[in-house]
Amino acid sequence: MNAAVQPSGMDETVAYAPLPRPFKLWRGGELPSGVIAYETWGRLNAERSNAILLFTGLSPSSHAASTPLNREEGWWERMIGPGFALDTDRFFVMCVNSLGSCFGSTGPASIDPSTGRPWQIDFPEISVEDVARAGYEAARSLGIEQLHAVVGPSLGGMVVLAFAACVPGGARHLISISGSGAASAFAIALRSVQREAVMTDKAWQQGRYEPGHGPSGGMRIARKLGTITYRGAAEWRERFARGGLTPRGERAAREAASRYPAGFGPRFAVEGYLEAQAERFVRVFDPNCYLYLSRAMDCFDIASHGDPVGVFRRSGLTSALVIGVETDFLFAIDEQALAARQLEQAGIPTRFAPLPSIEGHDAFLVDLPRFDAEIRTFLTST
Amino acid sequence: MNAAVQPSGMDETVAYAPLPRPFKLWRGGELPSGVIAYETWGRLNAERSNAILLFTGLSPSSHAASTPLNREEGWWERMIGPGFALDTDRFFVMCVNSLGSCFGSTGPASIDPSTGRPWQIDFPEISVEDVARAGYEAARSLGIEQLHAVVGPSLGGMVVLAFAACVPGGARHLISISGSGAASAFAIALRSVQREAVMTDKAWQQGRYEPGHGPSGGMRIARKLGTITYRGAAEWRERFARGGLTPRGERAAREAASRYPAGFGPRFAVEGYLEAQAERFVRVFDPNCYLYLSRAMDCFDIASHGDPVGVFRRSGLTSALVIGVETDFLFAIDEQALAARQLEQAGIPTRFAPLPSIEGHDAFLVDLPRFDAEIRTFLTST
Repeated sequence: MNAAVQPSGMDETVAYAPLPRPFKLWRGGELPSGVIAYETWGRLNAERSNAILLFTGLSPSSHAASTPLNREEGWWERMIGPGFALDTDRFFVMCVNSLGSCFGSTGPASIDPSTGRPWQIDFPEISVEDVARAGYEAARSLGIEQLHAVVGPSLGGMVVLAFAACVPGGARHLISISGSGAASAFAIALRSVQREAVMTDKAWQQGRYEPGHGPSGGMRIARKLGTITYRGAAEWRERFARGGLTPRGERAAREAASRYPAGFGPRFAVEGYLEAQAERFVRVFDPNCYLYLSRAMDCFDIASHGDPVGVFRRSGLTSALVIGVETDFLFAIDEQALAARQLEQAGIPTRFAPLPSIEGHDAFLVDLPRFDAEIRTFLTST
Repeated sequence: MNAAVQPSGMDETVAYAPLPRPFKLWRGGELPSGVIAYETWGRLNAERSNAILLFTGLSPSSHAASTPLNREEGWWERMIGPGFALDTDRFFVMCVNSLGSCFGSTGPASIDPSTGRPWQIDFPEISVEDVARAGYEAARSLGIEQLHAVVGPSLGGMVVLAFAACVPGGARHLISISGSGAASAFAIALRSVQREAVMTDKAWQQGRYEPGHGPSGGMRIARKLGTITYRGAAEWRERFARGGLTPRGERAAREAASRYPAGFGPRFAVEGYLEAQAERFVRVFDPNCYLYLSRAMDCFDIASHGDPVGVFRRSGLTSALVIGVETDFLFAIDEQALAARQLEQAGIPTRFAPLPSIEGHDAFLVDLPRFDAEIRTFLTST
């Protein structure tokens, strides 16, 4: 139950790009210094014109695919590599850990140089815009002034839209996957309850927990609720029906049961699955980082930059692909349709791809053939 | 923050029906004694053949409509009365507080006669079947052996199906609203997270909190999550968009904000709304009662009585009405369609009414004209 992970210092399997000093933040405040952790695949060409910058969802690290330094499978393993959708025979792919996260990039779990202690909730408020700009600075640290494409799913699907607004001319093409130009009231409601679960856990201690002794109970609830909303209701039905505990879920469920009086623990397969998912997350993700990124998603609204059509018109984008999933109820398909329409109205040739995957918001991690086909076709045309 | 309400003893605005001693429970165990609180509207005829037994959702009391003893508006105020859908010019309507609840009926917050202290989690496990049978006993206490109809929404929509299985010949007609013959994995997942929020609140104290000092933080989270899932995502969008706090939500939100460090409290209208909803619930509902009824819903499966078609064939029902709402994602329309099909296959003339209300699971409380029309037409035909 190691809920609050001490940032691991230097991890030799990732690279670090320094942020400009200071790095001014979109909602005010600044970071005196900071780094963005990233990993790369493929080769940057001499013109530095073949780079794809990949942003992540809320929880992953920069480890989108295995590398010689880290053989572990990445979160988008079959999408990046020679002959894959993000084809490393042609592109130099760079995935960044979001500013505010806890996998190498600067965030609330990092050390505040002025105190020598973790920032925790003294970290300034970060926004989706800051995640976009910090990712761009990581690319610039390699001498890349213009990306061939910016790509991102979920939070990353918001980040690339913010990128278009904040870094005019910073990318020629954009792929926004299961994202949104503005969080819906429904998503805000769900995320506010997730954060409340973390913050009402006494172990949160108003944000000042000892690293390693954070609000693991609240984080577990937040992650379970996330896991539920990342998938479609129909899929839950298909996968679990009303089955009892399975061997996979049983170990986690037994541990969970030991926390409660007899009869009050898990009974159904779906509960064991949630428990296993949550356990993994709680082990690696810092609670304050979670709160910061979750709040940033709520507050994102492309319209805060001005009329979205005008914003996109000034973006310098040459083309765009917006992918949504019809069963996604967290980032509803209407939200992707709206972003696609605004891009198109801004004069940017845009393909909107509503996919019928049953996996809801998480489909981009699971239903790879559909996403591969869309992204491959789009990038081939660029 | 009065999270654990001491049962108020005798409330003179409701009536109490004694349960048989002992009252044996469906999943084993028994209650040495118990009562069911109820309220009535209209007059029981001499043959005692005009009674409608109304079951509730998880959280309401028996106060479905105002009475001379309690002028307060009920949870189905415009549906019960002279000329209303449950027409008291014709019917004697009786609404029961569920066994296991905390508004007068025996449940975990009641006093265990053997100890003189609240049962709390020593209360035996209760099931949807027990709620049905206890409601029937309340009717029998008035000399009613056969109901004209059993009616119930949400949990009540499950209860009436359990009634058909457990009390053959106990009712001539059945109206199941936004219910289910078996909780879906999706609903189980959500409810298990709600219960976890209550049980991981340290104030729960493994179920043995001092009445009045229960897990209010966990209950607040559970209720907010409930409130989110009771409505459709589209409705959230329409009602709240991305609006800031409203005067209505502001008081609740200010209180909520005072629990957190600056910047971590509510910012959006939807958060103020959830806070106000949760506050009201936490004030009146006993946490252990909540856990018992929530778990009972997860465990309900009409198929545990045998093949549902055979079960309904033995029910003695003459006709049935099953209502569902297309935007309900907690009790999905497929679940009501299935129950209707099984009733029909059992030879019971059944109308299935899928309604297009946008209010999701809660539509029966809000979109009254549609429900009124269906129920009125059905009852007129009986």
